[in-house]
Formats: sequence, C-alpha cells, structure tokens
Amino acid sequence: MSLLTKHHTHLEAQTLAAKKAAKILGILSTKEKNDALHVLANHLEKEYKRILEANNKDIEAGRDKEYEAAFMDRLALSKERIIEFANGLREVAALEDPIGEEISSWTLDNGLKVSNVRVPLGVIGMIYEARPNVTVDATGLALKSGNAIVLKGGSSAIHSNKAIVDVMHEALEKTTIPKEAVQFINSTDRKTTQQLFTKKEHIDVLIPRGGGSLIKAVVDNATIPVLETGVGNCHIYIDQEADADKALSILINAKTDRPAVCNAAETLIVHQRWLNENKQGLTDALKAHNIAVHGDSMIVDAIPGAVLAEEMDWEKEYLGLEIAIKTVDDIDEAIQHIEDYGTKHSEAIITEDQSSARKFMSLVDAAAVYHNASTRFTDGGALGFGAEIGISTQKLHARGPMGLSALTTSKYCMTGSGQIR
Amino acid sequence: MSLLTKHHTHLEAQTLAAKKAAKILGILSTKEKNDALHVLANHLEKEYKRILEANNKDIEAGRDKEYEAAFMDRLALSKERIIEFANGLREVAALEDPIGEEISSWTLDNGLKVSNVRVPLGVIGMIYEARPNVTVDATGLALKSGNAIVLKGGSSAIHSNKAIVDVMHEALEKTTIPKEAVQFINSTDRKTTQQLFTKKEHIDVLIPRGGGSLIKAVVDNATIPVLETGVGNCHIYIDQEADADKALSILINAKTDRPAVCNAAETLIVHQRWLNENKQGLTDALKAHNIAVHGDSMIVDAIPGAVLAEEMDWEKEYLGLEIAIKTVDDIDEAIQHIEDYGTKHSEAIITEDQSSARKFMSLVDAAAVYHNASTRFTDGGALGFGAEIGISTQKLHARGPMGLSALTTSKYCMTGSGQIR
Repeated sequence: MSLLTKHHTHLEAQTLAAKKAAKILGILSTKEKNDALHVLANHLEKEYKRILEANNKDIEAGRDKEYEAAFMDRLALSKERIIEFANGLREVAALEDPIGEEISSWTLDNGLKVSNVRVPLGVIGMIYEARPNVTVDATGLALKSGNAIVLKGGSSAIHSNKAIVDVMHEALEKTTIPKEAVQFINSTDRKTTQQLFTKKEHIDVLIPRGGGSLIKAVVDNATIPVLETGVGNCHIYIDQEADADKALSILINAKTDRPAVCNAAETLIVHQRWLNENKQGLTDALKAHNIAVHGDSMIVDAIPGAVLAEEMDWEKEYLGLEIAIKTVDDIDEAIQHIEDYGTKHSEAIITEDQSSARKFMSLVDAAAVYHNASTRFTDGGALGFGAEIGISTQKLHARGPMGLSALTTSKYCMTGSGQIR
Repeated sequence: MSLLTKHHTHLEAQTLAAKKAAKILGILSTKEKNDALHVLANHLEKEYKRILEANNKDIEAGRDKEYEAAFMDRLALSKERIIEFANGLREVAALEDPIGEEISSWTLDNGLKVSNVRVPLGVIGMIYEARPNVTVDATGLALKSGNAIVLKGGSSAIHSNKAIVDVMHEALEKTTIPKEAVQFINSTDRKTTQQLFTKKEHIDVLIPRGGGSLIKAVVDNATIPVLETGVGNCHIYIDQEADADKALSILINAKTDRPAVCNAAETLIVHQRWLNENKQGLTDALKAHNIAVHGDSMIVDAIPGAVLAEEMDWEKEYLGLEIAIKTVDDIDEAIQHIEDYGTKHSEAIITEDQSSARKFMSLVDAAAVYHNASTRFTDGGALGFGAEIGISTQKLHARGPMGLSALTTSKYCMTGSGQIR
C-alpha cells in the first residue's frame, strides 16, 4: 500500500510521511502485521542477489578505506546471512503482539470504566552503525509493534542498507502496511542527522545503536526522548570466597566468548586473598586465551607480562582480548569501583558467600547483576525475549534487553455514560 | 540519621549527599519507610506554627508584588492545610511499597535464575512552582519509593518551603532515613537552576511541575532525563450523535469544576449539525457559568457575545472561565484539530454512536481518551492511585497520572552456579 506517489527527498517530508503511516499501521490487526512480515521475509530471500551486489559496493569502498577485519566481517553479507535476516522476521512474526494488550482495567464507583491499554509509540528513529542486519531487525520489531521507523544507518553500509530498504518497500506494496512506515535516510551528511535529532513533531523516540561516541552524540544533541543502549564497561568481581573453577570459567567466558559485544567483561576486580591463593591459575587462564592485562601494581607483581593500568583502562571498553584488573581489600571497595567506572549495564560477583552476593546484588546499580554466572546472558535472545532492539542502560522506560514491549506506550481509555466530577 | 554534619551550601555537595543517602534509603524496609513517614507527619502537625510564620513572609512578599488572588490562594497555608499535608503522608505510608516487587521471574534451561525486580530510580530532582504542598507530597512519594529528592520550589514560596523542609529534616533525625535524602535548594538564582538541570552524575530524573513555561524550560535545558508533566490543552468533541444533556453536563463540568487544573477542558469542538439543533442550550449553559467564548465564524454567528478566535486561542490553556469553540463537518476534522493543537493529555468524545467513539478512542493520541465522561478524571486521586507526583504527557516510562511505580525502575537479578554461554 502506498500513501504518497511522489518521491520525497527531504527529511521533513520523510518524517511526516512516517508519522502519517504510523496512524494507519498502529491500528492494523496482528494478522495483517504478521502477514506483512512474512511477505518481507520471502521477498528479501527472493531478491538476495540485488542486496549482495549492493553489499559488494560497500565492501569495496571499505577495502579502499582499509577498515579493520572485524568491521569488514560485520559489514559483509552472504546468501546465508540474508536467509538469517528473513528468518529473524519470521521469528518476530511468531512473537505475541503487544499492541492492544489490556495492562489493567477497573470500574470506578460512579460506573466509569477505566482500561489501560498498550499502544504503539508512533515513529521510531533508529540511528546505527555498520551492521546491515539492524536495518532488517529494527524494521521487523518496529512494524510488529505498530510503529513506523526512520532508519539512519552508517555511511559504510549505505548501499547495502538502501538495497535492503528498496526490497522491503517493494514487499510492503503487497501488504496493508503503508510502505511509508519504513523511511530510509539516504544521506551521510551531518546536517541531516542533526535535523533528525530534533524532529520532535514527527518522531517519538530515538534509539541509537552502536559505539559509545555514536550514543553520546545522540544523547547530547537530541531534543527527542532517547532510549540509550549498549555501552557496557562490565565488571567481574571475584570475591574472597569465590570457587576458583567457577571464577575462572566465568571470567574467561565473559571476556572471550564474544569480546566485541556490550555484555563482555572489560574489568576484573579481584579480592587480594583470592588472588594470593590463585595467582597461578589466573595467570594460566589469561595466558591460554591470549588476554593482555592492564593491572594495578599488585597485579603487575603477580602476573607476568601485565602492564600498569592507567586511569583510562578503568573506563575503557576494550572490545577485544584485553582486560583491566584491580585488586581490592573488600567487597565495599569493589562496589565503589563499579559505582565510579561502571556503565550500569551488567556486573557480576563470583562468591560462595551468600551474604556478600546479596550485598553486591542490592547495592550495585545496573540493568543486570549476576551471582556466579557470566555477564553474557544480558541479551534478549539468551533470556528468551525472541529478539531485541538493543540493551537499555538507562533507568527510565526500559532497562536491560528491550523486546517488543519497550517499543510501546500505554493509553487510558475511559468509557462512561455521562460521568462528571 | 545524619550522614554529614557540616552544613553544605553548594549544589554539588547537596546533590552528592542526596546520591549517597539514596543508597541507604533504597534498601530500607517498608516498615522503616512507613514509620519515618508517620514521624514526618506528626512533626509537621506539631510544628505547624513555625510553618505558618514562614508562610506569612511569603504572603506579605506576594501582596507587595500584587500577585493574583488565585495564586495567593495556592500559596496561603493554614493549620488545616498543614494537617492535610500530614494526612497525605499517612496515606502514602498506607500505600503498597513498590520496591522489591518481583515483576517477573523464570529459570533458563541451564538453571540460571532470572528475576526482574522493582528498584528505586535513585535521586529525583523536583522543580515546581508556588505550591508548598508539593514540597510535602513529592517528598512523601519519593521516600516511600526509596528515592532521595532534591527540591527546587518557586521563589514566591521559598520561606514556606524552607520551613517545611527544616521541620522534615528534624523529623528525619529520629528515623533510619538519612536526612540528606531530602535536599532543599535554598536559592532563587537562575544559575543554580541551570546547574541542577545537568547534574547527571547525581540526579536520575527531573520532574517539572507547574505551568507550561516552567516545563518547557526544563525540557529544553535538561541533560538529565525528564518526566514531563501536566500541560493540558484538553478538548471536548461533541459529535453529531451526542446526547444533549450528557454533552452540556460534561462540557460544563470539564470547563468549570476546577478551571485552573491541567485536566480542565480548554477547547470545545462541536459538530455543525449538533450545534444547529442545540444552539440555545449551549448558549444558555455557557452564559449560566459566565464562560467567555472565542469561536470560529459559525460560533460567532450562533452564540451572542462570542468573539472571533485567533490562532493562539486554539493553542492556549486559559485555566479560567474562557473557552475556544470550533465547529467541524465530521469526526475526522475533529481528530485532526486535536492532532494539531492537543498536548496529548486528555481528550473526550461525546456521542451515542459506538463506531465514532471507537474511532476517536483509537486514533486520538493522548494519555487519556474519554467516551461520554469528563476529562476531569485524569487524576491519580480520582482513579484510585492514592497520590500522584504529576500527570505525564510523554510516552516513555509513564503516561497519565504517575503514582509510586513511576518513581521506580527495574533490575535483572541473575543467580547461577557457574553458568556460561
């Protein structure tokens, strides 16, 4: 379905079109939305070659710019990855529709019926970096939750993203969702992005997804409410009473399973006494996984090859096989260090002492706190949410992995027969 | 209980003290918090004379400045009003404690226990105008929900607010709540307020409560997340199929019951056909309640004394016995007018046509939508929430009347036995 025939190039026209489309999309039935997601999935699979051709342009440009291998990995698409994207949309179609859910309802003594129902936010502005999968994932979650979406991806993936959106637009023509519900900002200039940050009259929320500097740019410049996602300077605290096997296994998993993601550990805080008894085990484990160590003076003495940590090491997301290690005299010092340097994402204590665990879990201020488990579980998929639009590290609206319901708001619907106060 | 003995005069020290106090307050038991609220209530009643003396200074200063009568009314305290404040605190003590509530919990296949629990936001910055009752109400709600509060009231009530906080501080000395959990910014200069708007490292959320210009100043200048409250340009739409008695009774109630509050009606939208049949009834009702009318040309013709509305009349909160009236040809025009001029607060349709009612309720984007009832019910007390910190007109976090749970966030607590991914 199409609301506008003329091709709009300007941001104003695009965000307005998204707002109008959101009105139609917001009241579609669950079946209409699910059918559309399947049409999108099938069409992406059918047109995978066009997407790969566009992706090649981005890959070539990336090679010219000598991007890092990990970056190129995330950018590169394949037939298999496009099938994964399509299957992701089918999974979103299978999720329960949050829209229309009656959160609560009651009747006042005067007979006025009160019903608080879940409704879409309206228009979501998605600002992200070089992962073309976000173009598909975010669109799927937005449409399922009845929201229009304005996509602003990174310049390094612009051909891939454009091709994906073109294919999705063709697919939407065959559905009851207006294709204007998906808007792609085909521009890499800073001015357009700035404009997007302040289009409060058309966009209801901005969701930045990417590195720390991207997120900071959005938070600092947006006048639209922001759902802050993802910066994770996560800590593992190995307490005096930690079981050595659990501690080392969790540490290595949290650090090395996928070092580039936000729920990976960046700093180890270790109780002095535990360190004294487990120096060799810790050294061996770090060495076996090629983890470079930045530590305080006690760590430099204890672990061969460790270099003295600077202030910035406590603040940094290494996102690779490096770790900062700090020794503490007690749990309070560990909690204070997390308070000073943490990003309120995921924090873990390893201990067999239940009262220390309780203290840590209640005093550490983060989206997720762990006792004897890896921080890697802070993830919509791992927690069974099906799909996530990002991991919120803020306190308002949604905290932790955000699924479909984070893309909704509520509305009080009052039905009366003339009630007055 | 007291954390700091030295008297701190600077904002930085005050907000830091609030943050430290929040850590202690956040893990107190329900009983400790409720006991403290009763101590506060009793002490306010006992020391009412000191508060009235301070209030007199504000009243005298207000007379010198020739404030409006309604403003002076809201500023003036009495023994009875202070007893009301104290009883308000006792009512908050009687409300269920949201903190510690397990919102959801489940166990992953690997045995990891996941529990999502409700926790305090931390520190609330409350920015408000000349109602000393907010000083007590907001403090009660903050403390009950485990949050410290930084109070910045209007300069016209500064003596009253200071005296109330002094009395509350004395009372807190006798409780397990650190008195630093309640901070009063004893300053009226703009620079201090600006500093408060950006103390992101100490304050978790700002709640402005007052007129439109206050709220706009906070939203435009804050870098801390804001819970936007209260501007209400509310509409009553009288549909073609409206019952005349219901329509007039609801209109008069919404306009005149308490014209200065945010859920009062400011604009009437009326279907032409209904107007033609009910011209006299509408005219009589408005006249009987001394309501001045700003209308479009059809209204100027229909209602004696009506003056032609200007653009600003459609945007304005009159907060008094004035109303803007627009005629429409159909419900779509009414919905569009609300879209263009509404503030997403409370909007009502009066009709006997169920399908028009459904259309209005689903398409109008507001915190509360009404069918055949007065907009005056958008209120924490009226809806049975016990007490409210304000009425949110934003979509994120909380929408509509905000009770205790709007002052909380959530935290995932994961308990394992060595689980890794």
